[in-house]
Amino acid sequence: MTERIINLHSELTYSVHAPTTILLKVAAMRTARQAISDEILTVNPSTSVDYLQEGPLGNRACRLSLQPGSTTIHYSATAAIEPKHPSNADLNELDYTELPAEVLPYLNPSRYCESDKLGKFAADNFGHIDRGFNRVSQISEWVFNNLSYTPGSTGPSSTACDVLLQRTGVCRDYAHVAIALCRALGIPARYVSGYAVNLNPPDFHGFFEAYLGGDWILFDATRLAPIAGFVRIGAGRDAADVAFATLIGQATLTGKTVQATDPQLVTESPSGEALSTA
Amino acid sequence: MTERIINLHSELTYSVHAPTTILLKVAAMRTARQAISDEILTVNPSTSVDYLQEGPLGNRACRLSLQPGSTTIHYSATAAIEPKHPSNADLNELDYTELPAEVLPYLNPSRYCESDKLGKFAADNFGHIDRGFNRVSQISEWVFNNLSYTPGSTGPSSTACDVLLQRTGVCRDYAHVAIALCRALGIPARYVSGYAVNLNPPDFHGFFEAYLGGDWILFDATRLAPIAGFVRIGAGRDAADVAFATLIGQATLTGKTVQATDPQLVTESPSGEALSTA
Amino acid sequence: MTERIINLHSELTYSVHAPTTILLKVAAMRTARQAISDEILTVNPSTSVDYLQEGPLGNRACRLSLQPGSTTIHYSATAAIEPKHPSNADLNELDYTELPAEVLPYLNPSRYCESDKLGKFAADNFGHIDRGFNRVSQISEWVFNNLSYTPGSTGPSSTACDVLLQRTGVCRDYAHVAIALCRALGIPARYVSGYAVNLNPPDFHGFFEAYLGGDWILFDATRLAPIAGFVRIGAGRDAADVAFATLIGQATLTGKTVQATDPQLVTESPSGEALSTA
Amino acid sequence: MTERIINLHSELTYSVHAPTTILLKVAAMRTARQAISDEILTVNPSTSVDYLQEGPLGNRACRLSLQPGSTTIHYSATAAIEPKHPSNADLNELDYTELPAEVLPYLNPSRYCESDKLGKFAADNFGHIDRGFNRVSQISEWVFNNLSYTPGSTGPSSTACDVLLQRTGVCRDYAHVAIALCRALGIPARYVSGYAVNLNPPDFHGFFEAYLGGDWILFDATRLAPIAGFVRIGAGRDAADVAFATLIGQATLTGKTVQATDPQLVTESPSGEALSTA
Repeated sequence: MTERIINLHSELTYSVHAPTTILLKVAAMRTARQAISDEILTVNPSTSVDYLQEGPLGNRACRLSLQPGSTTIHYSATAAIEPKHPSNADLNELDYTELPAEVLPYLNPSRYCESDKLGKFAADNFGHIDRGFNRVSQISEWVFNNLSYTPGSTGPSSTACDVLLQRTGVCRDYAHVAIALCRALGIPARYVSGYAVNLNPPDFHGFFEAYLGGDWILFDATRLAPIAGFVRIGAGRDAADVAFATLIGQATLTGKTVQATDPQLVTESPSGEALSTA
Repeated sequence: MTERIINLHSELTYSVHAPTTILLKVAAMRTARQAISDEILTVNPSTSVDYLQEGPLGNRACRLSLQPGSTTIHYSATAAIEPKHPSNADLNELDYTELPAEVLPYLNPSRYCESDKLGKFAADNFGHIDRGFNRVSQISEWVFNNLSYTPGSTGPSSTACDVLLQRTGVCRDYAHVAIALCRALGIPARYVSGYAVNLNPPDFHGFFEAYLGGDWILFDATRLAPIAGFVRIGAGRDAADVAFATLIGQATLTGKTVQATDPQLVTESPSGEALSTA
Repeated sequence: MTERIINLHSELTYSVHAPTTILLKVAAMRTARQAISDEILTVNPSTSVDYLQEGPLGNRACRLSLQPGSTTIHYSATAAIEPKHPSNADLNELDYTELPAEVLPYLNPSRYCESDKLGKFAADNFGHIDRGFNRVSQISEWVFNNLSYTPGSTGPSSTACDVLLQRTGVCRDYAHVAIALCRALGIPARYVSGYAVNLNPPDFHGFFEAYLGGDWILFDATRLAPIAGFVRIGAGRDAADVAFATLIGQATLTGKTVQATDPQLVTESPSGEALSTA
Repeated sequence: MTERIINLHSELTYSVHAPTTILLKVAAMRTARQAISDEILTVNPSTSVDYLQEGPLGNRACRLSLQPGSTTIHYSATAAIEPKHPSNADLNELDYTELPAEVLPYLNPSRYCESDKLGKFAADNFGHIDRGFNRVSQISEWVFNNLSYTPGSTGPSSTACDVLLQRTGVCRDYAHVAIALCRALGIPARYVSGYAVNLNPPDFHGFFEAYLGGDWILFDATRLAPIAGFVRIGAGRDAADVAFATLIGQATLTGKTVQATDPQLVTESPSGEALSTA
């Protein structure tokens, strides 16, 4: 298993008129397959930061107060990723009776993934496909082929059903549709936020994981960047759980830089190869 | 603090044509304030049962396979409840900066509680009320006064927004509206399923908890049964997390009996008194 | 052009507790291609009936008051239909600049046909098909192939978008989806209510018309009965305009018989042949 | 009855890359109470214009083709308005049995006014108010008090139900909510587009009419301009019927000027006085 090193930087500048609390989820997650080092979070002007671990997955969050004026939050770290590369043939869909308890909530519908409404649609379109990695790949491909990536066409309240009708969206919408379709077929699926090498334009990214063969396998229906270059920030039921910034009050984002670079220029994993970093 | 003893019985009979997996959430939760004894789960005809603890709260679930024909699942137990009765004056709404990390997900919108759409509505109607127990009580009262309890008027896909428009629903809808309004105001809130003494007609019940003064305080916008007689089965973001039965396949519910009785005939706690059993 | 004779009967029985007004749209429309004779409307117990012509198309309606107790409304008539059979090759989609003014409102979205939300979906699925009769036929076929006819799966508030997601419905839902897709492509389309020979089970029926080559051409995405046996009651933007019965108050429908018979047993028009009776 | 003279000007500039058809509804309507004179429509560069009368109300529309480049459409006219000022006491709500046939379609739900979903909400909030002008005034006032006028908070697909939840919108949204509530109570109501003296910032305006005492009475839930200074362009079931511009293709609106001036500086009609110009 080769290790991949990815350098992460993000910088957000907010301007507020009154003291405003912000919850940031921009720090990369520490997992058995994703080691984080050289991590620095700076806030300028400096303020105390409350470091949290949230939810069943321990998503990391930083809570801090923005004082009137402009505040810049800079995060940088180095991620060393050793993904698991299970054989596609092993990535079967587990029977419901085999699913571990902690995975079951990822079958439930969530705010932006109304899987309860899509049973027949999912069965009609994907019910005939052999269960397993290939089926989720085909769902991801269907989403890629049937949506247009159109910034501004959706908003923070847009759901998988909205997007299935309008057929446009951005990365979070692509992930929501794929997750809703997976869950409607009985495949546990969840939303992942992160950094992505070679994402263009550079930004935070949203993708998804499906539970196959006992592992959480990464998929990206947008195909905007190679999965091998993804660094996980957090995971959740949908984008509601891993918003990059949650503001308690009014603030204006006046600057944003996001960067994920791979100093070794490692070639990406061959297309169609499954990968897990959870 | 006096202990209250409540006897629980539920019996569900399902008829299936083909082997069908079912996930039941009917067993009462064990918490520091809710001791469960004499617990019996019988399945007739007998089959192996897989006992699970699900989600961050450890909701209990039983997974079993129904064989063709009719299967009856009987559950009985005795709950000994020692609720905490915090003084209403102490039940303040915590500032966002004070909320513990594990509580934060209960501020997020969920499938049936689209709090992200209700910010102005909640602020207009409840923003002027002093923060704390009284404000959540008034939300609960508003839901009681503005909805009509109408079995059959909503379905499994009905959401808080649907119900806010149509103004009818059942216990789960009442809870969803109240939860969505709390979250829209920055008050963590979650859905609780359970048994309720003197619920008429007898059935499982759905109610909600708001996080006040560091405790999860019980509320029931339906007012159909005294809160002091509630026995918690499980809690979650909304009804999606604690469905009494989840069927993987087709089954017909041919019989249902639910009973919660209080052998001591303890009088209920005075109205307006806060109570926590989480 | 051969004339076709169709005998119509319908009988509705309502039970009310208090005087209740009802608006019925069950009388067949008189058009240049649909002559109505031997028309009888009886109300038992008898009451005065207000005969109306409603909307730009002159849909016929009967307004009457139901007195406490049971009231039966019987309608019978003979329709002589001489449809126009334009050549499919002539049934082109008119350019927007060629559409007559009275047709333009049938491009607007309506309550149950949210064509404004379906532009990309319609273009992706039907934009590549040659414009004209064949394209609308393919839309109708797509609706037939992708929906399941499932009584009870939709209700009076279900819209084309709801049905596109859940993929089940009844005749009105099939028509609504097809109409919404046509309008999204710039093809004027409207809802038609009527009687249908050989509809099984017998009932009123809902279908649609698209404006092609200067005529309103009939389509039925349900394929439940031959178009040649349709008798028009009324047309409108969607089912809201031609409800068979609108009740101002509470009433229970206690009996319903609908019959359309073709005494000559005329064979239906060959499949794929266009037909207009507007 | 005093006549009021209002001068109208509007100028729209569109830029297109390919020939694009546009349907404009900017010309003031001619009615018994609204005489139009000195009407000029100029298109620069000049092109042929197709003048249409659309729908049951004869809404006027101009259909023309924009050629690549920039096109400016200027409209000016003088409206002489002699409103009817019925006594409020005469403006009763007609019983359903008294409503003329041509008014009945304005009881139906429409794309942006889902009155079928709001029966209980409307009855709970306005059912206890005496029927007639005062009740519609209170509906209009409720809309004014409960919505915030927030440009950009809604879009072309926003409906009365959406707006009732989010509680923000612009003039069309205010009208849609009021119309939906009226219809839900059995009061025919329709959308009116027009010019408005002293509207700030100047723009086209949207308001509504309710059918009371046999007349279509004007209301404006936004209170942004005096009703006495309204000049009607057209009316319809909702904004879908009277969009100022409908584009068949892509175009960019690069300039827009709308002006309605009252050279006599007539003071507005006293608040609370009913007025009909239909």
